[in-house]
Parts: sequence; structure tokens; C-alpha cells
Amino acid sequence: MEEQTMVAAAFVSELRDRYGIEFKNLHLLDEAFTHSSYANEHPELGLRDNERLEFLGDAVMELTVSEWLYKRYPDWPEGELTRLRAASVCTRSFSSFAREAHFDKYIRLGKGEEQSGARKRHTLQEDTFEAFNGALYLDQGKDAVVKFLDQIVFPKIAAGEFSAASDHKTFLQEYLQKKGPVEIQYQLLDEEGPAHDRSFAVAVTVDGKRLAKGVGHSKKAAEQDAAKHALADLKHQGPSD
Amino acid sequence: MEEQTMVAAAFVSELRDRYGIEFKNLHLLDEAFTHSSYANEHPELGLRDNERLEFLGDAVMELTVSEWLYKRYPDWPEGELTRLRAASVCTRSFSSFAREAHFDKYIRLGKGEEQSGARKRHTLQEDTFEAFNGALYLDQGKDAVVKFLDQIVFPKIAAGEFSAASDHKTFLQEYLQKKGPVEIQYQLLDEEGPAHDRSFAVAVTVDGKRLAKGVGHSKKAAEQDAAKHALADLKHQGPSD
Repeated sequence: MEEQTMVAAAFVSELRDRYGIEFKNLHLLDEAFTHSSYANEHPELGLRDNERLEFLGDAVMELTVSEWLYKRYPDWPEGELTRLRAASVCTRSFSSFAREAHFDKYIRLGKGEEQSGARKRHTLQEDTFEAFNGALYLDQGKDAVVKFLDQIVFPKIAAGEFSAASDHKTFLQEYLQKKGPVEIQYQLLDEEGPAHDRSFAVAVTVDGKRLAKGVGHSKKAAEQDAAKHALADLKHQGPSD
Repeated sequence: MEEQTMVAAAFVSELRDRYGIEFKNLHLLDEAFTHSSYANEHPELGLRDNERLEFLGDAVMELTVSEWLYKRYPDWPEGELTRLRAASVCTRSFSSFAREAHFDKYIRLGKGEEQSGARKRHTLQEDTFEAFNGALYLDQGKDAVVKFLDQIVFPKIAAGEFSAASDHKTFLQEYLQKKGPVEIQYQLLDEEGPAHDRSFAVAVTVDGKRLAKGVGHSKKAAEQDAAKHALADLKHQGPSD
């Protein structure tokens, strides 16, 4: 049991100092950081691996992120929320959160997994991030998870790090405004077709100069398409002086 | 606004009488039962459709069911939990809960959708069930959702209605009843062995004709096995006349 406590002790300090988190039930924390390969390798310790906590933590993350998006973007349609949730709740993002919080350093692996480089595997890091949040949820409830995510996840979503590919308008705006304030406008050029299959054409202009055209089945979709083409053109040219 | 209030009033009574639920913010309830087709058809009412609540409710259901499974089956491995969650949290189950609670009766649809039979569409019923739980969560928090699910969902999971293995009987029934009503029966053929290792043999008959035999360590398991074999045989033959 010595190693178990040692690992947890170092990690307990780091969690307290960096995130203000103190577990009441340290067994939950131990469980969250026990990979099945480690539990299997040390049957004498009677350890539980983190897979059940990962099951719960996956759902905890789904709800906490969904609720945050729902409240943060009160005017967004469901489709935009779903896209941003999918981009935020995924292996790439969760594994990066896990590394930022040094979870990859503390996960306990069996020797074979260690040698095969499992510690750097994104899915393993993702699983650990989910298991940790599952453990925190059981130990202290949803508010504690939200408080943690307020430090490590939500600011990044708010900063647009996971904006779905569809958010071309935001990307274009950010790209153009790097060089100073500009006026970006979308003009409806044309619409045609029956109501159930209508098609829209839109132009995007910057300080009055037309950058690109876009088409789509809604004005909004056409605007996104125009922004996408404008961005592609701009990036192709490279930064202008 | 008259129609909006009328629909809500009838439903408010039913929710209170059947499930002990009283919404503080009735606008949330209205929103949960407003299909986009209805909102689009009545722009003068300025209604919000239920899609954002469905987005949130989907995650609320995922967590409440996951947490219930996690606590109810403390010894199950993650794989079993995941399988049962997937079977419990799906269109077929959610639409049946919605019908049981008469949600299909109260959803407000546009005329075109109504005429095309949307009220009976399982995905629409599922969406309404999710939206309702999203609204209840916002109005009264997770415990209120759990209390509702304790009446309408959890007892069915506990009774094995969504047990992965149990699906063969359901699948067989659905497959056979596509061609019209049939009588499916399971007959115990034999049982043998000591109490701790008993074996059962069962036959499944359709309209009196034997389709297949199954074996298992319980009658129920043997029935599932029989249904599985019957299905496999039927699908191999292709549709009979």
C-alpha cells in the first residue's frame, strides 16, 4: 500500500495548491488514477481500476459542459450548441486538459503499458480526466466539478479554442481584427427556390471591399460559407501589409 | 397566447396529479412542448421551440441514468454499465416513457407536421422527453429529475426491461409482427442438473409452429437463446411469404 499512498500524497498537494481541491475520500482519487494494467499487476493491493469512474465522469462532463454552453450562449440554436459541445468534449481536448493538470504524470500504469508508451496516449489521458471528474463529482458534487472546469475548461471554450469548424464568421473576424478594427458586413445578394428548398447567396465585405461570396440553404449558412471562402483566400495570399 | 396557456394548464394538472411535479416557471414547460414546426407557424406568439432544452435534457438524462446505474450496480464492470446505459438511453426507450407520461398528447405541432403523423414519430417523442427533463432540471435541479425518473424510468431498468441480453425476445417480436399479429410462445422442454448449475431447454413457437430451441442457466436466459436462434434462422431464410 506504500506506493499507493505516496503517489496520492504528491498529487493531493498539487491539486490543493493549483486548483483548491481537497478530496474527502482519498480512495476515490486513488481509484481515478489506477489504470487497469496497474490493478492487474498488483492483485495483492486489491485496487479498483478507474473504468467505472470514467463511465460516470464521461456523463458528468457531458452535463457540466452542456449546462455551461446552454447558459453562456442563451441565443444560440441547438445545432450550434451541439457542434461546440462535440468539439469541446472529445479526446483531443480532454487529453490536453489532463496534461495541463499533470494527470498524465500521476496515472498509475502497469509495467508493460508504461514501456509501450501508454502514458502519452491521448485516449488514456482522456479516460483519466473523465475518471477524475467522476471521482470529484462523487466526493463533492457537481458544483465542485464546475469550479474545477471553470479553471481548466470553460475559459478555453469561451476563448473559442473549440469553436466548431462552422464558426467561420468568428474566425474571420478574429483574423481580420488582429491588424486593427475593421467593419465586416454580410449582404444578401440573391435568394431563390421554393420555401422548403430555398437557396441564399451572400457576399462578405470588409471596409466596403468585397472579399468573397457564399451560398447556403439559410442566410446564416450562406454567411458562414462566405466567411469560410474569405478566410481561405486570405490565408492563401498570406498576410497582406 | 390563449392556446399556449390552455395546453399548459391541462398538462400542469396531469403532471401534478400523476407525478407530483409543479413547475415554478411555466414558460420552461411551454418551451419544452413547443415543436419547431409550431413555433414557426405562429411567429406572432414569439415562442421558443424545444430544441435547446432537448440539447440540455439529453445530457441531464445521460448523467442521471449513469449515476443511477453506477450506484445501483456497485460491482458491475464498466462494460456492462455502458451496455445497459446504451440500451436505456435510446430512442425506443425514451419515446415509450414519453407516451407513458402522455407527452405525445401535449406536444404542440405545426399543421403540416400534424398531418404527416409526426405526433407518433418516436424521435419526436424522444426529443420531447429530453426537453421536458431539461426544463425540469433548470426549474428544480437534478433531484427533481431523479424523483421523476424514479417513477418512470429506473424501475424499468431495475426490472431488466433494457438488459442487453433481453433484447432478442423483443427483436424477434418486432421482426415477426412486421407482417401482422402473431402469437409467440415459449415452452419449457426440459430442466436438469443440480440447483447451483441448473440447465433449462426452451422452445419458441409462433402461431403453434416451433421455430427454434434455446438453452440457458435460467428459463429467461433459455428463452433469450431460443429467440436469438429463431431470429438467426429467419434472417438466413429471408422473409417468408
